[in-house]
Amino acid sequence: MDERALLQEVAAIIGKEHCLDDCAVLSCGDRLIVATTDMLHETTDFPNGMTDWQIGWMCAAVTLSDIASMGAVPAVLLLAVGLDDPSRIGEITRGARDCCSEAGAYIAGGDIDHHEELTIVSSGIGMVTPDHIVRRSGSKSGDLVCVTGVLGCAQAALNGYHQYDKTLMEPHPRVSEGVILGRTGATSMMDISDGLSISLYDLLEANSCGYSIYREKLPSPAGVPPDEATALALYGGGDYELLFTVPNDWVPPPGLHYSVIGDVIRDHCILLDGDVMVRKGYEHTWGS
Amino acid sequence: MDERALLQEVAAIIGKEHCLDDCAVLSCGDRLIVATTDMLHETTDFPNGMTDWQIGWMCAAVTLSDIASMGAVPAVLLLAVGLDDPSRIGEITRGARDCCSEAGAYIAGGDIDHHEELTIVSSGIGMVTPDHIVRRSGSKSGDLVCVTGVLGCAQAALNGYHQYDKTLMEPHPRVSEGVILGRTGATSMMDISDGLSISLYDLLEANSCGYSIYREKLPSPAGVPPDEATALALYGGGDYELLFTVPNDWVPPPGLHYSVIGDVIRDHCILLDGDVMVRKGYEHTWGS
Repeated sequence: MDERALLQEVAAIIGKEHCLDDCAVLSCGDRLIVATTDMLHETTDFPNGMTDWQIGWMCAAVTLSDIASMGAVPAVLLLAVGLDDPSRIGEITRGARDCCSEAGAYIAGGDIDHHEELTIVSSGIGMVTPDHIVRRSGSKSGDLVCVTGVLGCAQAALNGYHQYDKTLMEPHPRVSEGVILGRTGATSMMDISDGLSISLYDLLEANSCGYSIYREKLPSPAGVPPDEATALALYGGGDYELLFTVPNDWVPPPGLHYSVIGDVIRDHCILLDGDVMVRKGYEHTWGS
Repeated sequence: MDERALLQEVAAIIGKEHCLDDCAVLSCGDRLIVATTDMLHETTDFPNGMTDWQIGWMCAAVTLSDIASMGAVPAVLLLAVGLDDPSRIGEITRGARDCCSEAGAYIAGGDIDHHEELTIVSSGIGMVTPDHIVRRSGSKSGDLVCVTGVLGCAQAALNGYHQYDKTLMEPHPRVSEGVILGRTGATSMMDISDGLSISLYDLLEANSCGYSIYREKLPSPAGVPPDEATALALYGGGDYELLFTVPNDWVPPPGLHYSVIGDVIRDHCILLDGDVMVRKGYEHTWGS
């Protein structure tokens, strides 16, 4: 049983419309609130060698990235921390606070508990006007498919390219990029936490069109053999870049570091250099 | 080291103003958003014999109670669930959904993860106008100290009075009561999750006045010997009733089930029948 099968079970109970985007959306007067929650814990989410400050930073980054992917401005984070050792709380909180500060947000509260295994749930709230929100749905045939930054750096670090350790352990959520993309007409968007391939298939699920991607257009990690670099860009997780679509006459805002990696197509499928792309990346599976 | 010492360490890092109330508060146009998060897990938070539906219900109830205690209307909950066994997700989600439905809220999303020990973090968002929000601070000397419902029922169930098992395992957050109290002029409010004594000391911390409480005025569980019933009402946790203060000429709204248990006094202390009240109740402590 994989994570997505479980999600479908939950969707049947709470309503499928509440499981489509990176964040929940609700209205508050003339604005929209977006809200999201992420659970991370020691054995599966924090690579060996991370400091507690980096753990706190990463927990905040993951949530801020979800908010950014809706085109929203992050406002506050709440941190629920299940501690195996009470002396860790200071550095974890400082790391999360520093990541929030960089994004113009702050930690507004939380909960502390004792736990056998360090477990952190970061929940965030952002705000956006109805005309600037970007959802997973909205891609149109003929749009360009784009990503921010370089893909595969976090996985490159795990593969032993230590020049990328900092990208893995201190991911910088694309907060200002997400807001700019919302204001300049991105048609659909999500973040790439589990790798490009899985993200494209998630995007596919929310749209009736499809996506055609080209290997040679992928921004991949320098200093890695070409085939491995491409595989990292396609299937590596942990990058927290943004995957988005824009009209093909879109005028990019100055200073945005992004790459066009393909096109939105009519057929409801994902193509890689013309063939159906394998759906793989980081995904938790349970034993039966 | 106890939970409150850890909270002080966190407060020094994120700002004490973000650790004073049951919820974080931020403005959104002409309204206020309140937000809160609670971590619960199997070994410490769910009494033996609870069904998964009841576990889901309780997780939602705890969060809805925090929102209610600010006088806010609950809007949405996000549920992050760390599952030891994937087959539990359905009933847990149904329980949380049903509790939300009763409160007029809904589950708007969440996260699913694998965990050695079932761990659930419920985060909630509510809304309230600035003139109807009620905080922990705001008690005035001469005000009446009040509570909703009956205190000590959850602990009575743990002590073996099984007529209270349902109160323990399916707490009903005082959502409509909290909203009504906000609209009719309560001066300060919080929920009583860790027992009356600890809650009064928390209220004390947010105010410069004090509180004088009388044993004979406490609404305590029926069918329990009087001394034990009083102890349960003072020190038992898990009730999720509201503790609030109102002006002494307050006109109670029709149908509100509440008890006046004492007065707000000038001195910064908690008195029980005129003597300083012992601060005790449910509180997690860490070994060194």
